Amino acid sequence: MVYITRKEHFNAAHKLFRPEWSDEKNQEVFGKCANPNWHGHNYVLYVTVKGEIKPETGYLIDLKKLAAIIKSRVTDKLDHRNINLDVDFMRNKMASTEVLAIEIFKQLQPAIEEAGVQLHKVKLEETHNNFVEYFGE
Amino acid sequence: MVYITRKEHFNAAHKLFRPEWSDEKNQEVFGKCANPNWHGHNYVLYVTVKGEIKPETGYLIDLKKLAAIIKSRVTDKLDHRNINLDVDFMRNKMASTEVLAIEIFKQLQPAIEEAGVQLHKVKLEETHNNFVEYFGE
Amino acid sequence: MVYITRKEHFNAAHKLFRPEWSDEKNQEVFGKCANPNWHGHNYVLYVTVKGEIKPETGYLIDLKKLAAIIKSRVTDKLDHRNINLDVDFMRNKMASTEVLAIEIFKQLQPAIEEAGVQLHKVKLEETHNNFVEYFGE
Amino acid sequence: MVYITRKEHFNAAHKLFRPEWSDEKNQEVFGKCANPNWHGHNYVLYVTVKGEIKPETGYLIDLKKLAAIIKSRVTDKLDHRNINLDVDFMRNKMASTEVLAIEIFKQLQPAIEEAGVQLHKVKLEETHNNFVEYFGE
Amino acid sequence: MVYITRKEHFNAAHKLFRPEWSDEKNQEVFGKCANPNWHGHNYVLYVTVKGEIKPETGYLIDLKKLAAIIKSRVTDKLDHRNINLDVDFMRNKMASTEVLAIEIFKQLQPAIEEAGVQLHKVKLEETHNNFVEYFGE
Amino acid sequence: MVYITRKEHFNAAHKLFRPEWSDEKNQEVFGKCANPNWHGHNYVLYVTVKGEIKPETGYLIDLKKLAAIIKSRVTDKLDHRNINLDVDFMRNKMASTEVLAIEIFKQLQPAIEEAGVQLHKVKLEETHNNFVEYFGE
Repeated sequence: MVYITRKEHFNAAHKLFRPEWSDEKNQEVFGKCANPNWHGHNYVLYVTVKGEIKPETGYLIDLKKLAAIIKSRVTDKLDHRNINLDVDFMRNKMASTEVLAIEIFKQLQPAIEEAGVQLHKVKLEETHNNFVEYFGE
Repeated sequence: MVYITRKEHFNAAHKLFRPEWSDEKNQEVFGKCANPNWHGHNYVLYVTVKGEIKPETGYLIDLKKLAAIIKSRVTDKLDHRNINLDVDFMRNKMASTEVLAIEIFKQLQPAIEEAGVQLHKVKLEETHNNFVEYFGE
Repeated sequence: MVYITRKEHFNAAHKLFRPEWSDEKNQEVFGKCANPNWHGHNYVLYVTVKGEIKPETGYLIDLKKLAAIIKSRVTDKLDHRNINLDVDFMRNKMASTEVLAIEIFKQLQPAIEEAGVQLHKVKLEETHNNFVEYFGE
Repeated sequence: MVYITRKEHFNAAHKLFRPEWSDEKNQEVFGKCANPNWHGHNYVLYVTVKGEIKPETGYLIDLKKLAAIIKSRVTDKLDHRNINLDVDFMRNKMASTEVLAIEIFKQLQPAIEEAGVQLHKVKLEETHNNFVEYFGE
Repeated sequence: MVYITRKEHFNAAHKLFRPEWSDEKNQEVFGKCANPNWHGHNYVLYVTVKGEIKPETGYLIDLKKLAAIIKSRVTDKLDHRNINLDVDFMRNKMASTEVLAIEIFKQLQPAIEEAGVQLHKVKLEETHNNFVEYFGE
Repeated sequence: MVYITRKEHFNAAHKLFRPEWSDEKNQEVFGKCANPNWHGHNYVLYVTVKGEIKPETGYLIDLKKLAAIIKSRVTDKLDHRNINLDVDFMRNKMASTEVLAIEIFKQLQPAIEEAGVQLHKVKLEETHNNFVEYFGE
């Protein structure tokens, strides 16, 4: 069993707020992350898959294939977008790094399993100072 | 003459567009940077000042003082904000990295000169793959 | 179950030596790390906690709260200090990265559990070329 | 149980191809990695060992000793070499990152166990955008 | 006058040797860089251009255009190639970082000037520990 | 004229204080950098030299030679040392990054000129958030 990780990037806007709360309550709970006119990040996404090496190629999976899955399922939908407004799989969800990492995992898992490997982990960096990891359970 | 550089961060939303242009024209010129619902970045800002060392302290300038100037004049206004909508010194300007670097320079220069050193350069990274440098002329 | 990590920094002096050993023995075992007049590092600390997402906020834990725990329990005591001489929780202990990582874990665990999440891992980088990880057992 | 990781580097040439395949087939499967005249990388190697701290030194293992094992068994054989042609332990194997990580693990394990700790993981970065991890099973 | 820099990557094989010298002489002068079967690097290329901002766009130059010039003139020719054998503009030249940086500058300059800006600098990193800068004179 | 830069590291302890000042005055001027029991850093040193390429080798200077000069003149004296107490060329000087960068320049210049190139710049990083540059005048 070997693990391979592909690193990708996307740049997106978001805010943290609950529409049913007052501005004061949102500000109190989410601080500057609740700024009404949005803010944004250069997100860094690490997708780790695991499985057996194919003897013929020495590959676990062709990284071009893994990159194409991540692009079509995740980064094309998020890059240069507003996470709260523009992304189908984030509709009506909190745009926190935790929730986003879990939803990215769900987007990727079926296509990655179809490609013959297991999705082990999604790691998502929001800034240089924090990141979230999700293993699917 | 010695140069010292302080590195700071801010996370902001923006878009590139001209209101007098059609959506198609904005899309054609600015591509995905024109997404109507904004996108964002983790900007990295390097402020370089120059001057003579003070013999008593071995300092060019107390970095806490330089950091306080950058915070009050620049990063407090930009961090977790929308560059197009929320930032006084960017009103009615294109929110490109080039323009933002120049305007940050103008914001910093008077306070830095008052502190007894010269502002040499503002360097602004928008992503890991590009950055702008401005020397004030 | 999701994992979130916060990265912090502290700059400290230390040396590796046993007072009951001769200078020669300390030099032989610890090499240049035994320099009598100390040396120092820019330590990088990664604190990983785990738990369930709170549906209301989309947060595992408010990172400002986690940062405040790390600051009051760990980095305020270590930053710009001498690990061997100035730090209460390192008294009479070897100031190695391994021991320091374990003691930081012990400092953090009660306050982090009180905040409603579990402390999963402390990772401590001493230089760009080595780091220690401790999971609490 | 504590984990310590040592980071090392080597710069090597390689290509991905099967000699029994036509150039077209190699090109189709391995793309530009099959370039007949080779290409190369700055590989980054992370070796993680685990065990108990020795109370006398506060060390899991003397990092100079771990570094010497990695140098003699692995990086001296790979650095400024051609992985396909010059490296005894890669003879007749696919020079993929996955296979190389597993073979490095096998090279290191006996010497590291002899030194009194367990080899936990080999992590091998080929580029900034991908890395392989192998845990020995 | 403002400066903008684009960062690109290529992974290539090379060696340093003079065909008219003996193996011993090459080994003596170039050390392990003369390994007959090649070695390789993940090169990082920074291209800095300068000029005036266009008021309509806030751009010095559209970075997609700059990236396309770098790709067609430089990185498509170097990436996953052998610098000594496969690259037209390096034929019969020493494959040192210094010479490569100068030749990349020459490849880029006409197309960048045609695009309406000046080529200010080529910076080329061979490893994390060394890089070359060339300003065109 | 081409520029080549070599990156080196050293880990050292220091403090900022004037012995003729009271503890209170030192604390007021230098803040936590005046901690009596020292603190320390992983310094990163970039040495840039300039000159003409030697046609025979494609080198500006053999980097092994440049590295040897930096090691014997600078890093061997600073690494795992106390800058205030252990370093001959820092005796009776303020151990600030600014002063240290200038003194390193003076240590290097004669040997580098003797090696046939010019010393262009010393850049010294104290932390990830600040660095000093000195060009010799």
